[in-house]
Amino acid sequence: MSQFCTRRRLSGAKPRVQNLVIQMKEFFDVKTIEQALEYTAHFVRMGTEHIPLTESAGRILAEDIRSDTDLPEFARSIMDGYAVNGASTFGASEGNPAYLEIIGTVAMGQLPDFSVGPGQAVRISTGGLLPRGADSVVMIEHTTAIDDNTIEVYRSVAPGQNMVAAGEDLKKGEQLLADGCKIRPQESGLLAALGKTRVKVYKVPRIGIISTGDEIVAVDACPGPGQIRDINTYTLAGLVRQTGAAAIPLGIVKDDYESLRAKCAEALEQYDMVIVSGGSSVGARDYTIDIIGALQDAQILFHGISISPGKPTILARVGQKAFWGLPGHVVSAMIVFSQIVTPFIEYISGSAGRDNDLFQLTARLGRNVASAQGRVDFVRVHLERRGDTLWAEPVLGKSGLISTMVKADGLIAIGMNTEGLEKGAAVQVIPL
Amino acid sequence: MSQFCTRRRLSGAKPRVQNLVIQMKEFFDVKTIEQALEYTAHFVRMGTEHIPLTESAGRILAEDIRSDTDLPEFARSIMDGYAVNGASTFGASEGNPAYLEIIGTVAMGQLPDFSVGPGQAVRISTGGLLPRGADSVVMIEHTTAIDDNTIEVYRSVAPGQNMVAAGEDLKKGEQLLADGCKIRPQESGLLAALGKTRVKVYKVPRIGIISTGDEIVAVDACPGPGQIRDINTYTLAGLVRQTGAAAIPLGIVKDDYESLRAKCAEALEQYDMVIVSGGSSVGARDYTIDIIGALQDAQILFHGISISPGKPTILARVGQKAFWGLPGHVVSAMIVFSQIVTPFIEYISGSAGRDNDLFQLTARLGRNVASAQGRVDFVRVHLERRGDTLWAEPVLGKSGLISTMVKADGLIAIGMNTEGLEKGAAVQVIPL
Repeated sequence: MSQFCTRRRLSGAKPRVQNLVIQMKEFFDVKTIEQALEYTAHFVRMGTEHIPLTESAGRILAEDIRSDTDLPEFARSIMDGYAVNGASTFGASEGNPAYLEIIGTVAMGQLPDFSVGPGQAVRISTGGLLPRGADSVVMIEHTTAIDDNTIEVYRSVAPGQNMVAAGEDLKKGEQLLADGCKIRPQESGLLAALGKTRVKVYKVPRIGIISTGDEIVAVDACPGPGQIRDINTYTLAGLVRQTGAAAIPLGIVKDDYESLRAKCAEALEQYDMVIVSGGSSVGARDYTIDIIGALQDAQILFHGISISPGKPTILARVGQKAFWGLPGHVVSAMIVFSQIVTPFIEYISGSAGRDNDLFQLTARLGRNVASAQGRVDFVRVHLERRGDTLWAEPVLGKSGLISTMVKADGLIAIGMNTEGLEKGAAVQVIPL
Repeated sequence: MSQFCTRRRLSGAKPRVQNLVIQMKEFFDVKTIEQALEYTAHFVRMGTEHIPLTESAGRILAEDIRSDTDLPEFARSIMDGYAVNGASTFGASEGNPAYLEIIGTVAMGQLPDFSVGPGQAVRISTGGLLPRGADSVVMIEHTTAIDDNTIEVYRSVAPGQNMVAAGEDLKKGEQLLADGCKIRPQESGLLAALGKTRVKVYKVPRIGIISTGDEIVAVDACPGPGQIRDINTYTLAGLVRQTGAAAIPLGIVKDDYESLRAKCAEALEQYDMVIVSGGSSVGARDYTIDIIGALQDAQILFHGISISPGKPTILARVGQKAFWGLPGHVVSAMIVFSQIVTPFIEYISGSAGRDNDLFQLTARLGRNVASAQGRVDFVRVHLERRGDTLWAEPVLGKSGLISTMVKADGLIAIGMNTEGLEKGAAVQVIPL
C-alpha cells in the first residue's frame, strides 16, 4: 500500500465536490515547507530510457554502474621518461647522479616483451605500459642522455611514482555510480572509460505551464488599461528548464471555469506535471480549487504553505500526476517554485538529490529585516563583497514586481520562530 | 589598434617557424593564471542574432534594455478586497470597525470611470485598476459585508498598501538590463513584461574537441594492452556545454603530424574555438606546438601555466580564433578547462561575467595539504557537513584518474606563495 492510499483512508470518505470547494475556499489547509515536501512520495518517478552517452550530460542515471574491469588494466606511465626499478635511483641527485643503461623503448599501445633489471632503464612515453621489473618512471626532465645507451638520473623515484598501477583508477566490481546521480562531465568521462556507449537514464518530465487571469495578455499584445503581459509563463518555463525538465508553455486562459477546466484536463492527459499560475488565492475569481474538484481521481494535498511570499499555493494529485496552483504574483510564484516545486520535479526526474546542505553560501545581512512568526519569510537579496565580507542587501519591493527579482542575486529565509534578523546576522543565501 | 597588434610589435619580428618550435619545446613560456586570463582580450566576441524570447533562457543579451513604459501603467490592486482612501480606515480595529459604503465594482481589465470618496469602498480583485480617489486596498479577509452596500473594516490601511503604484515596477526610460548579462528566468520575465518577443543575443560559440594519442581508442572499442578509451572528449564536451557553448566532438587523431595538422586546420575553419587534448607536453610525440607553427597566421600566446595539475597547457591564436592544447590527463584537462578555458569561452560568448567573488563557498580543510611554491595547486575535495561546519576533504589520487573527479564535489586552490595549508584552514571551494 502506498503512503498515498493510507492518507486517503485516514482522511475519510471522499467529500462531495461542492463541500470540498466551500471548505477550501474558507480556509487554507496550510502546511510548512517540510510538510509540503513530504508529499513528493505521493508521486511516481519517470520511466527510463537508453540514450547515447553523447547525449547524457545533465541527465539522471537510472542504473548502478560497476566497473567490469580494472582500470588501467596494466600499469602505465603518466610521464615521458624512463621506466626503472625505483631502487636503481635511490640517492641520485644533481651532484651524484645515477647512471642507468637504456635497454629499449616501450612502443605505445603494446605490452613490452622485455623486463627491466637493476641499473637498467627503458624509454617510455606518457600512457606507455611499464615493462616487468619496472615500478616507477623517472621524468625525462630529471635525466640527461650521455650516449645512446646511457642516462644520468638526478632525482630518485619511489616505487609507484609517475605511474598508475593496474586498478588504481577503477577496480573490477567496484560500484562507481548509483541510480539517481546526475551525470556531470566527469561521470560522462567515467562512463566513457567503461565503454558505455548507451546509458540508462530517467526520462525527462514534460511540464505544462498555464497562465490564468482576465488581465493577462500575450507578450506580443499591447496591454490595455489594467492588462499586463504574461510574465509567469516565461519565468516558470526558465525555472522548469533549470531543473533539467522540459517546459511546455500552454498559453493564457481567461478566468472562465470551463475553459480552464478543459485546458487543465487536456494538459494533465498530455504532460507529466501541470503548473497553473494565478487563480490559487481565496478570491471570487479563483477557479483552480473548483477545477481540481471536477477532475477525475483528483485530491488536494495542500492549499497554502506557511511561507511569504507564496502562501496561496495548491498541490493536488490528479491520477498519478502533480497539479500545481501557484500564486499569480511573479515573485511569489518564483519563490514557491524554487523552494517547493523544484524538489518535486527533481524527485519525479529520478534524482537522488545533491545534498544542498553542502553548497550553502553564507553572507552577512546588510540591514535589519522584520519578519512575522509562524511562517518562513523569503527575502530577495543583492550580494556585495566589501573587503573580506559578503553582504546580503535586501531588495525591497512587493511580490508582483519582476524588477526586484532581476536585481536579486539570491534569497534568504527567515525562520518561522523569529521576529526578524538584525543587520550583520549570518545568513545562508540561496542563489537565484 | 588592438592590444594584440601591439603585442606582436613588441615581441619583435615573427620568428621563423622552425626556431619557434625548438624554443617552445625546450622550455615552457609559463604564465600565471592571471596573466593567462589577460589574453582573453586577444579574441573577438561572437556576432549577434535575434531569437524568439521563448528560446532565450541562458543566452547572453547583446543589447541594453530600457523600459519603454511605466509598469504598471496604472495603479493596480495586488489583493482581493476593496479600494479605498486609506484615511477612511484609520483607527479601524476588530473592536471598532470602520463602516464603508460600497459604491461599485472594478471590472477586470477596465479603467474605472468613477471615483472613491471618503467613507466609500469599491470591490476590487487582484490586478484590478484603482479608481480615482483610492490610494490603498483593504484585504477582503479584514472585512465583513453587512449588506449589499456596506462593509465593516477591521484594520486600517496606509496609502500605498496592497497596491502597486504606476511605474513602481519599471519606470519609463530606466535601464533595466545591460549588454552581456545572462538571461535568467527573471530576465526572461522582464523581457516578457516589456513585450520583447524577440531578443538580440550573442551567437553560441561552436567549439571543436579533438583527442590525440596513439593509445586512445573510441568508446565503443575494446582497448588492447596499453590502450584506453577516449575519456577527454566526453568530459570536455560536458564542460563546454556547461558554459552554454556548443560542443562538437571531432574524434580521435593518432600521433601523426600530418593527420593532426589537417584535422586542426579543418576544425579551425569550421568552428569558433578548437580544443585538442593530449600532445601538449614536452615529449617526443607532442605535435601540437609544431602544428601551430605550421598553421596560417598563428601565434603561440603561452605554453605552460603555473598551476598543478595542468601546467602543459598551450593557447594559440590562429587568425582570430583560440586554439587550445590541453594536457592529456583527464583531471589536468578538466582543471585547466574550469579555471582557464571557461573564462575565454564566456568572453567570446559575450558574457560580462557574473562576479564569481560573490558566489564563493567556504569550508574548512579536512587534513594538511602540502603544496609547492611558485604555482597554484588545485586539490580535489569531497564536501562533508559535520555539525555546523562544512569540511573539504582532499580526494587523493593522480591526475590521470577519472575516479577522483567523480568522488570530488569541488576544487580548492592553494596559492603560489604558500607551502601548503593546515587542517582546519578556511578554504574557498570551487564547485564541480
